Amino acid sequence: MNDTPLLSKDPHTIAMALLGRTPLFSAVSKETLNTLAAGALLRRYDRDAPLFQAGDQPEYLHLLVHGSVQLNAGTPDGREAVVELLHPIDTFIMAAVLTSQPYLMSARAVEPAQVLLIPARLLLAELKTNPELALTLLGSMAQQYRHMVREIKDLRLRTASQRLAVYLLHLVENAGSDQARLPCDKKLLAARLGMTPESLSRAISELRRHGVNVRGDEVRITDLQTLHEFCRIDQLLDTLEQDLKVMLPGEKQVQE
Amino acid sequence: MNDTPLLSKDPHTIAMALLGRTPLFSAVSKETLNTLAAGALLRRYDRDAPLFQAGDQPEYLHLLVHGSVQLNAGTPDGREAVVELLHPIDTFIMAAVLTSQPYLMSARAVEPAQVLLIPARLLLAELKTNPELALTLLGSMAQQYRHMVREIKDLRLRTASQRLAVYLLHLVENAGSDQARLPCDKKLLAARLGMTPESLSRAISELRRHGVNVRGDEVRITDLQTLHEFCRIDQLLDTLEQDLKVMLPGEKQVQE
Repeated sequence: MNDTPLLSKDPHTIAMALLGRTPLFSAVSKETLNTLAAGALLRRYDRDAPLFQAGDQPEYLHLLVHGSVQLNAGTPDGREAVVELLHPIDTFIMAAVLTSQPYLMSARAVEPAQVLLIPARLLLAELKTNPELALTLLGSMAQQYRHMVREIKDLRLRTASQRLAVYLLHLVENAGSDQARLPCDKKLLAARLGMTPESLSRAISELRRHGVNVRGDEVRITDLQTLHEFCRIDQLLDTLEQDLKVMLPGEKQVQE
Repeated sequence: MNDTPLLSKDPHTIAMALLGRTPLFSAVSKETLNTLAAGALLRRYDRDAPLFQAGDQPEYLHLLVHGSVQLNAGTPDGREAVVELLHPIDTFIMAAVLTSQPYLMSARAVEPAQVLLIPARLLLAELKTNPELALTLLGSMAQQYRHMVREIKDLRLRTASQRLAVYLLHLVENAGSDQARLPCDKKLLAARLGMTPESLSRAISELRRHGVNVRGDEVRITDLQTLHEFCRIDQLLDTLEQDLKVMLPGEKQVQE
């Protein structure tokens, strides 16, 4: 890893630009952004480099600026599961930072990554006097909580093949076509979906009957209707929520 | 269900006493408690009565005062899973209330229950001018988020028998002995642990070899060391966090 103290370059150009692009801080005043940017570090990680280990004490709020990072859960005997795959600009491990509790998950760069690190002490000091920031973070924590509830519903109520089908459906819908490319290798995809590589191969074969073909990293929907029925799409569970905020009286939630 | 508007009795005696017993509001000023108590309702539910359905718009923050409530996730085709079993004094569906988003789960009384309902509009109006309340709720949301991360780790990394073993171990430890009673029937326990009643029966049989005996609703640990080894207890994952709060500079987290 490789630290770039932002102050040695131009904090207002680099860190302010990065924070300004972060949905989480879009409603935060320029003064607050200045304070947070002044102490921030930009850190680069090589592919496969660890960012932190479960059990470590949190020192920074992490903003993924570039690349891809996975959050892993592991057991003392070495079993491991990918809980989340992060993409720019995701904020992560906010709950640990806010409560000064050890990380519950480990993080690793899946591809070369850049992360903006905001010192926890700076964020917490700013929170003490900045009610606007507290409300912004409260909205973000609520959204992250709801995301985890959806993950649990998905794990509890869907088979491995259905989870893969939903994933592929979203991938193709986001590409705005009936085709898309897998964004990561199959080993990582299997880990993310909570199955072994062998189960993923079986699920891919099974899905041919349900309207989707995967060859190498190419995904093609052959029968959208059949696929929808197989997934049992549930609007409440399967519609992604973005940029939720605390709904103070007189405000309106904007869903993107 | 049966509404008791607290104002028709003595709001300061009843609602203030209930809110005062709620860990969530322990750091909130008496003025804020007064405001919240003034509009609160005390509602009674019979066994099996629904509190709300997934998809409903949230009108109240719920505090379980008495009895037991389960949060369920379901699919359009009728599959259902118990995501959480609540006990007094748990606060629930805070994320939906704060962001004015539909409930992701349904709630049902497992035994006769009393719930204190705090109108969402009152809570949100108070949040607008009360930074102390925002920080209190932020700590609570962070704790709830971490609870969900632990659930996901548990679902992804443990077998059904291991999840049952951890549950029984906690039950007996909380009773402060080597014996305890199951607090709910086996059908509900199976649903809570994410398995069928048949799998639960098999898991109970399997656990005899691993140091725990279940007969009817009586649980007895026969070999603590063997049971610990089977569960692969992980301090980080398996130690319950309570009453976390946002750690402003100069404060100390108190773990109970």
